[in-house]
Amino acid sequence: MKKFQPQNFIAQLSVDCVIFGYKDKKLKVLISKIVFGNDFWSLPGGFILKNEGIDDAAKRVLQERTSLTDIFLEQFHVFGNTDRSNNDLFGKMPETNDETFTEKGFSKNDFEWLSNRFVSIGYYALVDIDKVKPKKGELDECVEWVEISELPKLIMDHNLIAQKALLALRQNLDQKLIGFNLLPDTFTMREVQELYEAIYDKPFARNNFQKKILDLGVLERLEKKFTGAANKAPYLYRFLK
Amino acid sequence: MKKFQPQNFIAQLSVDCVIFGYKDKKLKVLISKIVFGNDFWSLPGGFILKNEGIDDAAKRVLQERTSLTDIFLEQFHVFGNTDRSNNDLFGKMPETNDETFTEKGFSKNDFEWLSNRFVSIGYYALVDIDKVKPKKGELDECVEWVEISELPKLIMDHNLIAQKALLALRQNLDQKLIGFNLLPDTFTMREVQELYEAIYDKPFARNNFQKKILDLGVLERLEKKFTGAANKAPYLYRFLK
Repeated sequence: MKKFQPQNFIAQLSVDCVIFGYKDKKLKVLISKIVFGNDFWSLPGGFILKNEGIDDAAKRVLQERTSLTDIFLEQFHVFGNTDRSNNDLFGKMPETNDETFTEKGFSKNDFEWLSNRFVSIGYYALVDIDKVKPKKGELDECVEWVEISELPKLIMDHNLIAQKALLALRQNLDQKLIGFNLLPDTFTMREVQELYEAIYDKPFARNNFQKKILDLGVLERLEKKFTGAANKAPYLYRFLK
Repeated sequence: MKKFQPQNFIAQLSVDCVIFGYKDKKLKVLISKIVFGNDFWSLPGGFILKNEGIDDAAKRVLQERTSLTDIFLEQFHVFGNTDRSNNDLFGKMPETNDETFTEKGFSKNDFEWLSNRFVSIGYYALVDIDKVKPKKGELDECVEWVEISELPKLIMDHNLIAQKALLALRQNLDQKLIGFNLLPDTFTMREVQELYEAIYDKPFARNNFQKKILDLGVLERLEKKFTGAANKAPYLYRFLK
């Protein structure tokens, strides 16, 4: 790993990425276990180079930490309370003479820099888990998709960041439906409903849901899906060009 | 004025406030003319103390610059491109030996600090112009309410910040209707419609608008407003407790 050089970054400002993944009717979040300390789980995050736009920094950080590229990241909130690091996991941070720490190219000065107060810009994305292949970064022991309801305790205020990202994802979801590209080319209304139910974590009444989605005016109805039981076959839909 | 002390602030991070004001069916924005240089208009903005939450910083900055207190400020976007200061107004910035500059307690070092790249957190609020009395800050020649369509060229990317704040204000406006506290205790449907028309800058069809607002389920219908022409008197409404 290239030596970490704090002087290249904007001080006290960071980015954190909440990557939601959808698969098998479930909504998950990508988190990584950091090599320092025990049970040190975190959202993929990092810092902003002095000559780098914040959106570019978020993309680079995500790529460095998880190998994910071409992900549409949306900025949703800045986390800037003074008590962001008041989380007892911080008590488990390694000593500055910890071997893992020095092996990874960090010095005592770097550690001091990292211990500063940081204001963090939150980004989120929603991806199809089958279409992306996250890899662990240099500082990660592993990277995992975890159901949002089963997230472990994360460092700093990362649990809050994930919760706030979920609220942002839900807001105006109808308008994001096409952009997220989470459905196959043709799909049934049931598949759309399952996606919504995973994101909102609640069931929707079938008839009301169908009316609401069709009223958006973004879907085209195709032939029925062949299931063998013709009279119960659901219609297929696709997004209007 | 207390001497400006850059070392007390988080470097390279700022806040900018877009204060929308409503009066006489018009939507305006509060801007101030800075004492340095000519035609140097800006949104009220400033910096974040090292031991201060970002929302508190935005409130303090707004109070120092405009004397406005108890305003509900909502964070809406972070502006962090590298070209934020590429605005020809910056060519008009005073020299570091400018008298106005030193009179206000700034040194050459302060000026260098101010010339750094800043990432800025945008906040907005919507207030009743008759209920607030902004005053100019120490560094302002004047502070003014200007219609959003008639904003002059502002410093840096402040015109973009104002535009983006307007989009944020419009989003989910229905849900913000009560919170903004912009209508009198009792009001007619026409008054609600005028507020919406000012914010969206477009007319709404009366019947559709009335249905949409009543469907929100937040209004209570009272007696008719006495206008002298009883058969045409509009109903009065108020928000449900």
